[in-house]
Amino acid sequence: MSEFLEQCRALLGATYVLEAPQDMAPYLNDWRGRFCGKALAVLRPASVEQLAAVVKACAAHQVPIVPQGGNTGLVLGSVPDSSGLAVVLSLGRLNSIRNIDVANRTMTVDAGCILAQIQQAAAAEGCLFPLSLASEGSCTIGGNLSSNAGGTAVLRYGNTRELCLGLEVVTAQGDIWDGLRGLRKDNTGYDLRDLFIGAEGTLGIITGAVLKLYPQPQASITALAAMGTPEQALKLLKLMQDHCGASLTGFELMSRVCLELVAQQFPALPQPFAARHAQYVLLELSSNESEQHAVNLLERAIGAALDDAIIADAVVASSVAQSLGLWQLREHIPLAQAKAGKNIKHDISLPVSSIPEFIATTAPLLNQAFPDCQLVCFGHLGDGNLHFNVAPPEGVGHDAFLANQAAVNRLVHDSVDRYGGSISAEHGIGALKKDELARYKSPLELALMRSIKAALDPQGIMNPGKIL
Amino acid sequence: MSEFLEQCRALLGATYVLEAPQDMAPYLNDWRGRFCGKALAVLRPASVEQLAAVVKACAAHQVPIVPQGGNTGLVLGSVPDSSGLAVVLSLGRLNSIRNIDVANRTMTVDAGCILAQIQQAAAAEGCLFPLSLASEGSCTIGGNLSSNAGGTAVLRYGNTRELCLGLEVVTAQGDIWDGLRGLRKDNTGYDLRDLFIGAEGTLGIITGAVLKLYPQPQASITALAAMGTPEQALKLLKLMQDHCGASLTGFELMSRVCLELVAQQFPALPQPFAARHAQYVLLELSSNESEQHAVNLLERAIGAALDDAIIADAVVASSVAQSLGLWQLREHIPLAQAKAGKNIKHDISLPVSSIPEFIATTAPLLNQAFPDCQLVCFGHLGDGNLHFNVAPPEGVGHDAFLANQAAVNRLVHDSVDRYGGSISAEHGIGALKKDELARYKSPLELALMRSIKAALDPQGIMNPGKIL
Repeated sequence: MSEFLEQCRALLGATYVLEAPQDMAPYLNDWRGRFCGKALAVLRPASVEQLAAVVKACAAHQVPIVPQGGNTGLVLGSVPDSSGLAVVLSLGRLNSIRNIDVANRTMTVDAGCILAQIQQAAAAEGCLFPLSLASEGSCTIGGNLSSNAGGTAVLRYGNTRELCLGLEVVTAQGDIWDGLRGLRKDNTGYDLRDLFIGAEGTLGIITGAVLKLYPQPQASITALAAMGTPEQALKLLKLMQDHCGASLTGFELMSRVCLELVAQQFPALPQPFAARHAQYVLLELSSNESEQHAVNLLERAIGAALDDAIIADAVVASSVAQSLGLWQLREHIPLAQAKAGKNIKHDISLPVSSIPEFIATTAPLLNQAFPDCQLVCFGHLGDGNLHFNVAPPEGVGHDAFLANQAAVNRLVHDSVDRYGGSISAEHGIGALKKDELARYKSPLELALMRSIKAALDPQGIMNPGKIL
Repeated sequence: MSEFLEQCRALLGATYVLEAPQDMAPYLNDWRGRFCGKALAVLRPASVEQLAAVVKACAAHQVPIVPQGGNTGLVLGSVPDSSGLAVVLSLGRLNSIRNIDVANRTMTVDAGCILAQIQQAAAAEGCLFPLSLASEGSCTIGGNLSSNAGGTAVLRYGNTRELCLGLEVVTAQGDIWDGLRGLRKDNTGYDLRDLFIGAEGTLGIITGAVLKLYPQPQASITALAAMGTPEQALKLLKLMQDHCGASLTGFELMSRVCLELVAQQFPALPQPFAARHAQYVLLELSSNESEQHAVNLLERAIGAALDDAIIADAVVASSVAQSLGLWQLREHIPLAQAKAGKNIKHDISLPVSSIPEFIATTAPLLNQAFPDCQLVCFGHLGDGNLHFNVAPPEGVGHDAFLANQAAVNRLVHDSVDRYGGSISAEHGIGALKKDELARYKSPLELALMRSIKAALDPQGIMNPGKIL
């Protein structure tokens, strides 16, 4: 291995081959503190060519590679295992915005660009790059693409997959595939782009991308609606989409428990309703026309929902500040959960139509198996994506309750599976859910995936131990 | 082979194993009459299970399979070669709509369903399935998916790929992969769905799909704008998208030559402008709110374009009948071309921003190489997709001119390649453009495709001679 490392130093410069434990530490730690891996070295190439050359060296010496962007993933997909045999290949120095083509509504970027940097560069040209998620200040677009990140704008704009037109990828053999096409239509052979997207670095390393840009809306207006049941939330979704079409850009379900938790942990945040309701929906409408258009449309739709008794009450934000205040309620749910103590998290998706029944059948099963556990259920209802988190009963220690993690996961995921849902809606599989994947995917689907893995990475050096 | 055919008859019933030339003819002929292939037999299974059993028999006997839907493709992708060794596997009897889930906005269908049947079933539930193209009365959704069909609604709703959430596929080994998930978010491993979509039946046979449905707009309003140059058309596109966002559902460029051709061949169709202009754009706006909203928005945007001197003139349709009349002008271009005689067609795409320069540089090259040839340029400008067709000079016979086909293709496609475009925007590769693909794709991309083909279809029995 000393010959290999010597080669890396020659290719990158010694400064960018990290071997000292204190230098490597940030690259080896899961940011949620669940795991710390080991590595032979951390490599930090400055260009795609350097990166490709390093991959060729890895391939020649059969050194496993863990590609890494912002290392903000939630499923242990970007940290090495504890063998110490792999290198971490950091994309952090590939961080240039290569080109913005406003007339084509595209932007070409290095994979190591921070998501917020991309959002800002788009905004500076009067465009919107709609991908938005909690870690946007530190995650990279390469990581977003490799994990097909979701976030809060999926309802209108789709997942990261739908926001990408072309890719540049370094293959497991160290070749550079230039698929950086900025085309809306291209039917020339197999869809390699979408194969690398969501593959979590197990088939190759995404080094650049052509992203879609959208017109910046003139205004976004938010409302909070209160209702009795998830069925009514679903009816509200249909009504809003029928009335507003693509103008509906956000639809977030939150149960009463969620808002009570936020009120307990963050008493300074204003709570909009005096009365208690079982379910709440935060909805956002965006207009390319005007703020007034958005307000009118939202008030009309909310009025129809009140008339039809789909909702019990609603507040429409009358200013941008008030809109932000409503979003803060939603965004403080995970923060309030973290303050309250550990809990068992799930990132599941379901056919939207099954969500009321899924909640109605799964909650009692949980309560039967784990009496008095608390369900903290919220999420992107419009996408069928719930964060279906389970907290300990009052008085039970969080660490003690976490001993139930595997059993709780099993119960929830088995129920998800019965409704044709997914055990990973937006976080991916990584190392964390590999065994779960093996349980819920059909043997045929796993075999198809393995044959593709073997075709593109026959040595098995690309992010081993992740997904498969 | 007689043992194989005996097995097929046992599996399907003798009625559904066609061997007589007159029975097979419709399945062997390219509908545009350019080619007639040969086959061992035409097989017409009634169910996915029958189809899978037949594929197993083919795999056992190494019989090549040509999957076929409506056989309306444009690139010889669904007809067998002239060897007579292959079977045509018709999906025509798999034509049930399995399920419509309005609350999930999805529909699950057999691959052999006719596109128009799907559109109608969606409309009956108050939903929109937006895929729309000229052959919708006879093409099947399986063919649309296998060729990732485009059409007239791509600007707003995307290609067929973007309209599909899940697939059922019979593999080259005759196994049934059930990937019929109706989920908006699902990050559990490799994106097999998008690998089979657009693969033109060379990796497996799509037998079923979960399709996305949308709210039916309340109204669609059409306008025709006239301008001097493609640059101005591009400026109009940006202005319209900035003003109207997702409400802009159509944006079709047509040169003067196109409308003159329609006027010559179909003199009964009303031509909206007295004065002559160099370029025209047909634009369509849809609103989920009301017809009045669509009209107001369209008139406001058109007014802004007139104020900015981006366009010279415009008519806004004041009724649905008038809207249809404007669309008819666009739809009669290919019909007028067919009446006028044969021409050399191209289905290209480019970065939208490159289109003016592409036209400005490619048209003179054509005129230099083929003096006085006529360029009939129209297409989905909003998608960067041009039908860049070349007709003979006046007085030159069409058949004589068609002798130049390869040279004309070369000139146009080389130019497309220089601008980072695609030689097949929406029609696919099939057998027709296989050599062109080999010319314009990088050796690395071809090698990646071949390795995937070898992984999923190691015997090479799935639609051989297509794409690769």
